[in-house]
Amino acid sequence: MVIAEITVVPLGTGSPSLSRFVAEAVRALDDSGIRYTLTPMGTVLEGTLEEVLEAVRMLHRLPFNKGAGRVSTRLVIDERRDKDATAEGKIKSVEEKLGKA
Amino acid sequence: MVIAEITVVPLGTGSPSLSRFVAEAVRALDDSGIRYTLTPMGTVLEGTLEEVLEAVRMLHRLPFNKGAGRVSTRLVIDERRDKDATAEGKIKSVEEKLGKA
Amino acid sequence: MVIAEITVVPLGTGSPSLSRFVAEAVRALDDSGIRYTLTPMGTVLEGTLEEVLEAVRMLHRLPFNKGAGRVSTRLVIDERRDKDATAEGKIKSVEEKLGKA
Amino acid sequence: MVIAEITVVPLGTGSPSLSRFVAEAVRALDDSGIRYTLTPMGTVLEGTLEEVLEAVRMLHRLPFNKGAGRVSTRLVIDERRDKDATAEGKIKSVEEKLGKA
Repeated sequence: MVIAEITVVPLGTGSPSLSRFVAEAVRALDDSGIRYTLTPMGTVLEGTLEEVLEAVRMLHRLPFNKGAGRVSTRLVIDERRDKDATAEGKIKSVEEKLGKA
Repeated sequence: MVIAEITVVPLGTGSPSLSRFVAEAVRALDDSGIRYTLTPMGTVLEGTLEEVLEAVRMLHRLPFNKGAGRVSTRLVIDERRDKDATAEGKIKSVEEKLGKA
Repeated sequence: MVIAEITVVPLGTGSPSLSRFVAEAVRALDDSGIRYTLTPMGTVLEGTLEEVLEAVRMLHRLPFNKGAGRVSTRLVIDERRDKDATAEGKIKSVEEKLGKA
Repeated sequence: MVIAEITVVPLGTGSPSLSRFVAEAVRALDDSGIRYTLTPMGTVLEGTLEEVLEAVRMLHRLPFNKGAGRVSTRLVIDERRDKDATAEGKIKSVEEKLGKA
């Protein structure tokens, strides 16, 4: 399992607002069944590497159907093989070290 | 005001675990007074561009004091001048379009 | 066709040096046949979205075979549908505007 | 000294083309005196951490003067303290391992 964060930025849309694009991405993620969490700067995905890359392929293409002439997608993939990691577990691990959990 | 996400990755530490580095960064952020939120893949910062870049300078340097021989820091800065934006407001705006808020 | 930049960062290797990992990635890219260019901060890939994501899958996994316990891969995908774009053409377009080309 | 890569993406400009923004950034970098190299996906900067962050501040703000309502800037900073590193040296080190240099 990998944890990833993706941000899809449509260009040439004439508006600085992106929320309607993000809303459409959320609907597509709901349909896809992959585990995800919205953050202020992107969307965290959890799944196998194959599932994550399949979601990237889908999310990167969506804005072209909504009028974008160019799409800039950034992705970070984090994978550990020495232990099981989850998005929630990563934050918990920091809080434990801070004596907060 | 800008919204940013920073991730600081120490290299050459001999361990794949990063949570003790993140915990130290959180303590430094608490001392600095800048507004921040921990996410699974990074830390979201909110402040003026100067405040954010000052935090970047500080956070990038921390791991060298804890044994890292190399540090790879990634940062994304998002700034709108057509309207006030906050990290919380960005997610709310998406939820509104989804009819969830 | 898309233009992408990938950087694969192995963690927990005990050394801050990454060049042997990059060298292995270059050999794998040579075998794959995808068009690529090494830059100081990553590797630029050119191909279809499918070819690029297939290269990402392969490159992200390589360091685990060489002792990395964790891999952090970052990727940016840039795709235009309003005109054909190449890595070389992007730089040329800037130089033309600067009166250098 | 650090090596960094910056990409500044203006939003809400109505056009998918970014080369006139990059050309203006190049002119500003020439004036600033910082060492830089254009790559297909960004601009590589070399200098002290302070010099690089000062360049980030300047480059991030430029597009607002040219009609962008929103700017998304991504940055990666790479710093080694165990040895001197340069953008050119990083590529050379890989080529040596490949027997090409």
